[in-house]
Amino acid sequence: MTGSSSLGEDELIARFLAPLAGEGGFGLKDDTALLAVPDGEELVLTVDAVVAGVHFLPDDPPASIARKALRVNLSDLAAKGAVPRGFLLVLALPSGWTEGWMADFAAALGEDAAAYACPLLGGDTVRTPGPLTLSITAFGTVPQGTMVPRTGARQGDAVLVSGTIGDAALGLALHTGKAGAWADALTQEERAYLVDRYLHPRPRTNLTAALRASARAAMDVSDGLAGDCAKMLRTAGLGGEIDLSLLPLSAAARSALGADETLLETIATGGDDYEILCTVPESGVAAFTEAARHAGTPVTRIGTVGAPGGRLVLRDKAGERRFTRGSYGHF
Amino acid sequence: MTGSSSLGEDELIARFLAPLAGEGGFGLKDDTALLAVPDGEELVLTVDAVVAGVHFLPDDPPASIARKALRVNLSDLAAKGAVPRGFLLVLALPSGWTEGWMADFAAALGEDAAAYACPLLGGDTVRTPGPLTLSITAFGTVPQGTMVPRTGARQGDAVLVSGTIGDAALGLALHTGKAGAWADALTQEERAYLVDRYLHPRPRTNLTAALRASARAAMDVSDGLAGDCAKMLRTAGLGGEIDLSLLPLSAAARSALGADETLLETIATGGDDYEILCTVPESGVAAFTEAARHAGTPVTRIGTVGAPGGRLVLRDKAGERRFTRGSYGHF
Repeated sequence: MTGSSSLGEDELIARFLAPLAGEGGFGLKDDTALLAVPDGEELVLTVDAVVAGVHFLPDDPPASIARKALRVNLSDLAAKGAVPRGFLLVLALPSGWTEGWMADFAAALGEDAAAYACPLLGGDTVRTPGPLTLSITAFGTVPQGTMVPRTGARQGDAVLVSGTIGDAALGLALHTGKAGAWADALTQEERAYLVDRYLHPRPRTNLTAALRASARAAMDVSDGLAGDCAKMLRTAGLGGEIDLSLLPLSAAARSALGADETLLETIATGGDDYEILCTVPESGVAAFTEAARHAGTPVTRIGTVGAPGGRLVLRDKAGERRFTRGSYGHF
Repeated sequence: MTGSSSLGEDELIARFLAPLAGEGGFGLKDDTALLAVPDGEELVLTVDAVVAGVHFLPDDPPASIARKALRVNLSDLAAKGAVPRGFLLVLALPSGWTEGWMADFAAALGEDAAAYACPLLGGDTVRTPGPLTLSITAFGTVPQGTMVPRTGARQGDAVLVSGTIGDAALGLALHTGKAGAWADALTQEERAYLVDRYLHPRPRTNLTAALRASARAAMDVSDGLAGDCAKMLRTAGLGGEIDLSLLPLSAAARSALGADETLLETIATGGDDYEILCTVPESGVAAFTEAARHAGTPVTRIGTVGAPGGRLVLRDKAGERRFTRGSYGHF
């Protein structure tokens, strides 16, 4: 189980992936899969690719790689108000892959597929002379006409975000050994929490009903809150304002920021949050906040959508803040 | 337009890919796409990845790479009787990509998307330190319950195949300069025809209605006729027989085989045909053959499905033939 595997594609699929196949996946014995979309529902599609050395570290645990690859797609679906229905997996494998790695990868993928009720339906497995590359296409459904678009913000809407912001960016710094002296101010538990937030996004699938009911625009935060919010408002041709002192922070992120206040830039622009950023009409904020609390993931108001032609302004107590980098580009 | 591009992901998408976006693709401004599945229809899903240096030559024309990446997926859909509805594109780009390459790639992809009525709905663009890697997820629909499975063959069914077999395998040998002396026996036009068949698969989307009406089992031939037929019958637990003298050959393939009769193995096992292999009950062969002729792509009966527990036997006039390699594995 430790050396490079000589298994062919069919054996690899039969041994590691077919056991994960859901209804419509035909045990991965067909080239295609079948997905029934309930009457009155529409299909929401998303695809995200991750490359070793670019989006994750080659030595990251295979279970973490699997979970993150699936969850970033579930996060995209959640931001649209869509309920997950299934996914396709493309695995481009370098020649040195081992069966032990694949067993751990598949076990974690299967656990997540079950936990999120999003079965494996099919895929493709190819060799690559390059780094391990994973691409997952995920499918969700919404009642017809209820998908929450990225483009729907209107002037005066409240801007809200789910969970806490900045954990993953701080976790990445810790995970790659690039954290500053602030790391020493954290407890072992706080450091572990932040790294876990980087490795294992929490797609906010529990917020889908509340988003469909209340949000005019939404997206998940993957490239940094500041840049993603500017991008969302730009698609509507609008400016806006975010009060950085309102950003929801975990206890661990507050400890880090207490030790080094320059981390505010990392928190606001670092990315990999996989929280949901949305705009909600003023009249709907209370109901949305209550529904989110009831669903188990609090949302926090952090700003307001501004006027046509404006830009996104970030403020803290001292006035406007401009960060040197607007967002984390994975490209 | 000749040097490496410094365009970011958003500019790349806006300039080259957004113009291809169909309805439901939101101009590629959202992270997700929307697909309406007509009432009474089911969604058929397929995904195929191709890697430079593994599935195509890095110096192949970008237009050919684009067309093949999309068409191999359309071929999978066609074999299931599914009508194409749209696709998602994942592009993993090495750092040296040029805007000229991308312009040619996108233009050809857009032409094919229009020709096959299969619009671009979304995707992802990432950097890779490895070779160019493309992954396309394609969506089709069938009236509920009519998808033609790979697994449905029954003893006594006729085995049929569309178009002509072996052209692409011969074309690959010519394209890579690995053809034997037989190449000299071909006219320039014949050589060009075979290379074109390798570079530009013809997905048999015109056969979908006939397949749904008549076929019990079907798949597209991508890894070689002999191996793919054995695989299809194995999923039904059945054996069978193919008469190699019945394989439909193009004039160019007949010229090559006339010059070197050992090419029969390349023709029967070489792959990249993207023709449709199917089984049809004896009583339906005449109607299926007529419907296919009417649709513009002839089908040819090449064998018969055998008994449970049997294996696939290949015969020619001299008796049983066993090839040293059963199929071309792209893995």
